[in-house]
Amino acid sequence: MVEQTRFERGLAKLAEVDGQAGNDVVSPLGDLGKYIVEFAFGDIYSRDGLSLREREIAAIAMLTVLAGREPQLKVHIGAGLNVGLTPKEIEEIIIQTVPYSGFPTAINAFTTLKQMMVEKEEE
Amino acid sequence: MVEQTRFERGLAKLAEVDGQAGNDVVSPLGDLGKYIVEFAFGDIYSRDGLSLREREIAAIAMLTVLAGREPQLKVHIGAGLNVGLTPKEIEEIIIQTVPYSGFPTAINAFTTLKQMMVEKEEE
Amino acid sequence: MVEQTRFERGLAKLAEVDGQAGNDVVSPLGDLGKYIVEFAFGDIYSRDGLSLREREIAAIAMLTVLAGREPQLKVHIGAGLNVGLTPKEIEEIIIQTVPYSGFPTAINAFTTLKQMMVEKEEE
Amino acid sequence: MVEQTRFERGLAKLAEVDGQAGNDVVSPLGDLGKYIVEFAFGDIYSRDGLSLREREIAAIAMLTVLAGREPQLKVHIGAGLNVGLTPKEIEEIIIQTVPYSGFPTAINAFTTLKQMMVEKEEE
Amino acid sequence: MVEQTRFERGLAKLAEVDGQAGNDVVSPLGDLGKYIVEFAFGDIYSRDGLSLREREIAAIAMLTVLAGREPQLKVHIGAGLNVGLTPKEIEEIIIQTVPYSGFPTAINAFTTLKQMMVEKEEE
Amino acid sequence: MVEQTRFERGLAKLAEVDGQAGNDVVSPLGDLGKYIVEFAFGDIYSRDGLSLREREIAAIAMLTVLAGREPQLKVHIGAGLNVGLTPKEIEEIIIQTVPYSGFPTAINAFTTLKQMMVEKEEE
Repeated sequence: MVEQTRFERGLAKLAEVDGQAGNDVVSPLGDLGKYIVEFAFGDIYSRDGLSLREREIAAIAMLTVLAGREPQLKVHIGAGLNVGLTPKEIEEIIIQTVPYSGFPTAINAFTTLKQMMVEKEEE
Repeated sequence: MVEQTRFERGLAKLAEVDGQAGNDVVSPLGDLGKYIVEFAFGDIYSRDGLSLREREIAAIAMLTVLAGREPQLKVHIGAGLNVGLTPKEIEEIIIQTVPYSGFPTAINAFTTLKQMMVEKEEE
Repeated sequence: MVEQTRFERGLAKLAEVDGQAGNDVVSPLGDLGKYIVEFAFGDIYSRDGLSLREREIAAIAMLTVLAGREPQLKVHIGAGLNVGLTPKEIEEIIIQTVPYSGFPTAINAFTTLKQMMVEKEEE
Repeated sequence: MVEQTRFERGLAKLAEVDGQAGNDVVSPLGDLGKYIVEFAFGDIYSRDGLSLREREIAAIAMLTVLAGREPQLKVHIGAGLNVGLTPKEIEEIIIQTVPYSGFPTAINAFTTLKQMMVEKEEE
Repeated sequence: MVEQTRFERGLAKLAEVDGQAGNDVVSPLGDLGKYIVEFAFGDIYSRDGLSLREREIAAIAMLTVLAGREPQLKVHIGAGLNVGLTPKEIEEIIIQTVPYSGFPTAINAFTTLKQMMVEKEEE
Repeated sequence: MVEQTRFERGLAKLAEVDGQAGNDVVSPLGDLGKYIVEFAFGDIYSRDGLSLREREIAAIAMLTVLAGREPQLKVHIGAGLNVGLTPKEIEEIIIQTVPYSGFPTAINAFTTLKQMMVEKEEE
């Protein structure tokens, strides 16, 4: 029952962070998806100590500089918007990565952000 | 004069972010140090749109997951404390990196944080 | 003649590891392809000490966590199947990467694996 | 109680994989150490589908190529020896990383392995 | 006015390095594009001490081994050709990366180079 | 005999690039050292198409941005000096890395360069 509670708590937190997009990501992933729900969201994101806004600032910055993680960057830009970051603030996070990992990773993240904003406007 | 203003603005911002430690880092670095002051601090850190607290959350998360940048992680843990993050909040940022880059980078950052707190107590 | 033997030994090992797919990868690569045959397969993969199954476990894990190497990950998932790993075991290798490099690289590798299995079924 | 079981299962698995060294690593790490026990060992390493020998082949290869994770590489070389890999086989895993990430990371891992073998002999 | 001079000097250097392609890259990037012009080209590329040919040798090698930066690699292969590197010399730079970061990143860069040469011939 | 020739050609090239330091690096590395001599130096560095000066510009830039490869960076700063790069030019290569991978990796490489110059003066 406690195990179920971790999964349930994770699912609720995932919905709070990512909206519907989160569940779309994890549901086809089998056991890997289960661990994302239970551990990433049921354990880590459910902790106190940082706001969801602050956790997504960190997540967007990390996914930008680690490179090659575009699908996850896209999900977390969506999550950032969902927990209250503005597109301008997300652009600012991307600019903040430049001193730490240079221009190429920042350009790729900026391009991803712009594409998402265009898609949103077209909806 | 404008160029001087960028450098001066950068030095002031560097002191605001890092205290004395920042100047100790950049002064032996020649032109590289000049660019850190002018560009990283005079341009990027001087922008609006994110608080210094939020910029350091991003910086600590990035330096943790990029690995192999311990001296800079140490400087930015100090900067984080300087702009108002508590040791507990910095530990929380480190825990937030685990879903994105696994345990080894988080363990190394945690060890760095603990060593700094021990050194602070011994002062 | 010895040099020729390295290349020939490499070609035979490449075929043993990757089947036809290996040759399709290296043949358009000019001298770079020659070195892959001679050095990667003629020297390294031809060594004793680890089974091909074990070498591919290592290769799939490395290509997953290094990120941004999707074409090679795809080739080595194929190689893994070719030397006797089951799709379930490859999924297990991907899950084993999570503690070392987090969820995003594992998700990308899992997605690659699933796409390959769908393509195989459609053949 | 289930939660406790995950932790207990993780501690037992950690001891099976790393011997005493594992507990020495996680015990000073606070909540981060708790997650290593519960998630990395209680969840992931406790799964079927790959032998511990195979999991450590993957771990040593990953830690070698990701670079900047020497303390964890050292722990997992110890773990590899503990689950039955010979020093010669660990050297072979390191040689297997060369086609995937080049010589510098392999040299560093080889140096770590040699230092550990010298320390063992001196005990 | 000095600030304007940095931007102007950067634009001129960008055109010298990348031709028209450079401006196409930076113009949609907002403030990020401004920093690329001012800092990367107005400050760094405008320095003495290395030729543009040597700077692009370094850039192509770095973008190859860092992985996941294909759009920038493409721009800098174009820049390399523009400052006098031959396709054969760029292939040689890519081969030179193999001892440092292995075959997968070199294969991806080689594929990018070949695609660009095919596109050029089709123009 | 041809195989011996690759090794011999590699040893001669290694001495040309690194001086005595190169042999000191590879001789304790067993088969890994043999491959460095044969493949990295006997095959790759022995190719035409780029000068040794240009190959070391690429090598220093790559080792700087890949991070966590300090021992090899040190060897190749020595190699760069050996094939005719001045300390000022090596500093310039390090500055050239900043737009591609940010300040932290450049600071670490700069610190390594300065330490080596101090050690040289003390000899």
